[in-house]
Amino acid sequence: MALALSLGRRGQGQCWPNPAVGCVIVRDGRIVGRGTTGPGGRPHAEPIALAQAGDLARGATAYVTLEPCSHHGQTPPCADALIAAGISRVVAPLQDSDARVSGQGFERLRLHEVEVTTGVLADQAARDHAGFFLKTEQGRPLVTLKLASSFDGRIATATGQSKWITGPQARRAVHALRARHDAVMVGAGTARADDPSLTVRDLGVTRQPVRVVISRHLDLPLMGQLARGAGEVPVWLCHGAGADIERIRAWDGLGAKLLPCAAKGVQIDPHDALRQLGAAGLTRIFCEGGSALAASLLAEDLVDELVGFSAGLAIGAEGLPAIGALGLSRLDEAPRFKLIETRALGPDVMTRWTRALDPV
Amino acid sequence: MALALSLGRRGQGQCWPNPAVGCVIVRDGRIVGRGTTGPGGRPHAEPIALAQAGDLARGATAYVTLEPCSHHGQTPPCADALIAAGISRVVAPLQDSDARVSGQGFERLRLHEVEVTTGVLADQAARDHAGFFLKTEQGRPLVTLKLASSFDGRIATATGQSKWITGPQARRAVHALRARHDAVMVGAGTARADDPSLTVRDLGVTRQPVRVVISRHLDLPLMGQLARGAGEVPVWLCHGAGADIERIRAWDGLGAKLLPCAAKGVQIDPHDALRQLGAAGLTRIFCEGGSALAASLLAEDLVDELVGFSAGLAIGAEGLPAIGALGLSRLDEAPRFKLIETRALGPDVMTRWTRALDPV
Repeated sequence: MALALSLGRRGQGQCWPNPAVGCVIVRDGRIVGRGTTGPGGRPHAEPIALAQAGDLARGATAYVTLEPCSHHGQTPPCADALIAAGISRVVAPLQDSDARVSGQGFERLRLHEVEVTTGVLADQAARDHAGFFLKTEQGRPLVTLKLASSFDGRIATATGQSKWITGPQARRAVHALRARHDAVMVGAGTARADDPSLTVRDLGVTRQPVRVVISRHLDLPLMGQLARGAGEVPVWLCHGAGADIERIRAWDGLGAKLLPCAAKGVQIDPHDALRQLGAAGLTRIFCEGGSALAASLLAEDLVDELVGFSAGLAIGAEGLPAIGALGLSRLDEAPRFKLIETRALGPDVMTRWTRALDPV
Repeated sequence: MALALSLGRRGQGQCWPNPAVGCVIVRDGRIVGRGTTGPGGRPHAEPIALAQAGDLARGATAYVTLEPCSHHGQTPPCADALIAAGISRVVAPLQDSDARVSGQGFERLRLHEVEVTTGVLADQAARDHAGFFLKTEQGRPLVTLKLASSFDGRIATATGQSKWITGPQARRAVHALRARHDAVMVGAGTARADDPSLTVRDLGVTRQPVRVVISRHLDLPLMGQLARGAGEVPVWLCHGAGADIERIRAWDGLGAKLLPCAAKGVQIDPHDALRQLGAAGLTRIFCEGGSALAASLLAEDLVDELVGFSAGLAIGAEGLPAIGALGLSRLDEAPRFKLIETRALGPDVMTRWTRALDPV
């Protein structure tokens, strides 16, 4: 099951809107088939593994990281494929939360006398599939927030200098994290200040993450890296109702997808933006700031995972903070996170945190 | 030598103004004596170890973490004691930088046909004795700066709430760090806001660190924890020339030591304060903030080690920053530190850094 989970995680960022599933088929203690959901979500992991196993699937055990599907979508149901191949036992950590599957896959297997075992490594599977579950259950994708700052939590000097606070190892880790998410998201201020490309470089990914910018007024440079590459790597813009129609047309003409969102105060309502991004198929979003967007997501309790990179330098109080104003009046109102991991990454420290109360 | 160094480190915080030295005597592969410099710096490590070894010292090897002294101070010279005991070989990582010793201890040993080996674990020894070396070479103690903050680098909410950002494990680690320094130092703002006791609790230390407050105007509460305990645990106050004479008298009456220091702008000149603290005997100072004092030490390149505790919560931009204004105009002017260690400490992360260019 651990192997199946690791195969499944390889598909993260590549399979949306479908879950990234892993499947391992074992016969007499030997692995005879492996599969990971294909790019774009098809083919599913099970038929890939079954095809590898061939006749050896008869009487074998299939380890699948999510309940096999039971409905006719764009692929035939995996539960049927497992039955037809003669699999005698299916081990899966979790039931699928998609209403079209939810228990029916297991039921169908049991009906055809396939033994079903659940609960194995369920915690890890729940974490791996958290984005997909959040989308099906709450209609929004998982959000990972990245903070790369000096050790006093600053992302730029007072004059806006930010290149480079962290070292090459940390930047490489950021590219690997981008690759494991369906989309990379920034606020308009960061898009204007840094003119980022937001693509994954040097890791040989086949499907680049969608580039999402939250910009109420769409006041983004039409000559920047996002605009230039919008034809090749998708650019999705969450904008407010009052955005200039000329700008909307210009971005539409460049090939960007425009998502009109509700406002909340002076900003885009992050709940509405995430709802729309979820409806458009995204399951995992990697947010790279800036401080206003980070604060708005944290204040609304919409950050599921947090990855911090701290460099060995002090910028001081005039520097730009990693997280904008949260409007806290008491310490017990502060958004809290549970530590998963801390380690050195070249000259920097990487820390990973997850929300203290898991919403899944 | 590693054992001798670890014995020596046990004395950190207890031996000032003397260095915390460790000594191990080995005869035929067996340890026959161990010593650590005693509280207050006497007795030295060597006579303790020699006394333990007794006659077995004859022909044995002494591992000492610093060059044995050669001058008659308040104790007779250790070099002579080693010679008299019949030690045939002395292994020491480093020459003492004290002008009264500096090479003469080794010379004296060699003169009496004791073999001398140097350079073993010299880097670790240099770090362990950095406070003593800084005091003898630059006239100032080593400064360790502690930062305990939310992961976005805030030490309190906008309303000043700071209890508790970090968990009990981190607070316990802070007490252990206090115990390994000669003094604990805070700025006047922290002394007023938190009314800290700055003592080491629950670790059974015999010699509490000196409590140092940097306060230009001496506007410190006369009814607080520092004032109440000034008779038992030393309180040293670095104040400006313009401090109110009544306040000076009141603190003097409470038993505090008053150190008039030069000003630099609106603050006490940190160079002068450290010079005076060094002259008064301190070799290792643990600074616990607040943000103005931290910034003033960092801006003047006076921080030798940095210990960060980051908690899994976000306070946001209105919160009080861990480090005040540094007045940087460019990123390459930022004070830089080299990572030594990062690890989880209960729910928090501890990171240790050392100055990028070691002044020793």
